[in-house]
Amino acid sequence: MKHYAKPLSRLIAELSKLPGIGGKTAQRLAFHILAQDDAEANALAEAIMDAKKNMKYCSVCGNLTDVDPCSICTDQTRDRSVICVVESPRDVSAMERIREFQGLYHVLHGAISPMDGIGPEDINLKQLIIRLQQEDVREVILATNPNIEGEATAMYTARLIKPSGIKVSRIAHGVPVGGDLEYADEVTLSKAMEGRREL
Amino acid sequence: MKHYAKPLSRLIAELSKLPGIGGKTAQRLAFHILAQDDAEANALAEAIMDAKKNMKYCSVCGNLTDVDPCSICTDQTRDRSVICVVESPRDVSAMERIREFQGLYHVLHGAISPMDGIGPEDINLKQLIIRLQQEDVREVILATNPNIEGEATAMYTARLIKPSGIKVSRIAHGVPVGGDLEYADEVTLSKAMEGRREL
Repeated sequence: MKHYAKPLSRLIAELSKLPGIGGKTAQRLAFHILAQDDAEANALAEAIMDAKKNMKYCSVCGNLTDVDPCSICTDQTRDRSVICVVESPRDVSAMERIREFQGLYHVLHGAISPMDGIGPEDINLKQLIIRLQQEDVREVILATNPNIEGEATAMYTARLIKPSGIKVSRIAHGVPVGGDLEYADEVTLSKAMEGRREL
Repeated sequence: MKHYAKPLSRLIAELSKLPGIGGKTAQRLAFHILAQDDAEANALAEAIMDAKKNMKYCSVCGNLTDVDPCSICTDQTRDRSVICVVESPRDVSAMERIREFQGLYHVLHGAISPMDGIGPEDINLKQLIIRLQQEDVREVILATNPNIEGEATAMYTARLIKPSGIKVSRIAHGVPVGGDLEYADEVTLSKAMEGRREL
């Protein structure tokens, strides 16, 4: 990239740090930003700084929010006796999109991963236990990712909560709706068989 | 997106204005930016504003640059008798990457497109003619895009320059190297046949 002027190559370098943005895409985005008028480009820069400044993590559930506690935690119409445990704020958004879950959330900000040196004390688990002691919770739904780390985190969390007598459940594994059975991997398929329900 | 806090939905909206960035990608990028520490997020915002402030168009060739005239126009080791005409600054970068062309550039900032109401006076053509009158140019290589607008622009520009006696050439059309002949479209294949060279 030595033929790029410094401000341009700096912009390309910063853009290519974003997830899923490779060198070519970063170049295309950079040229696009430079071709825009000043107001448009600055709107993007300001949106980044404004979001970074005003978005924080909810002190109760750990979700991204601009008010603390977040609007979900303070929503009195929601079922406060069910807590859905997820790994990241993005998972909260995904759950909210299905408009079915009416309980509260707890964001762990990660998953237990001994390979990466991430233990139970490195994720937002302690705060979950405190919530369970203080609030009147009937069920904890473990919605961590269906991968090794997510499973390990779910297992660990379940064992931690079980003694309290609170119901602990794990979201179902199975074939994705709309998918083709023949393209499902073996583990998913075996989980789908295992979790079959009588009709 | 009504369940997103305002600063977050604003950031997602700004990001999804970028080319090739859909709603889902914009969400992923926004969550990534918010998960970064302040310094990293601000580095991106500042790179945008800095690039926007310091990058301008070269008054000679129209390329993006942080100094005017640009480093290519002032590079005395380059062949000043050949000008390669391209549509956008990105095309200059693409040409520079092949490290073969040693002449100068002229960026049109668009192509003639009557369908979109873009005529010859709407692109950077006038400046090209002025350059040809002032400088000692031997050849103009038309490297506009191989689509309808690019071809029309090349044809128009060629006709404009021809009377001056300066050599005008057009980059070759043909099958892309490394591609499969059977996947080449008919027009490309017929152009490849038409442009065949004796070995």
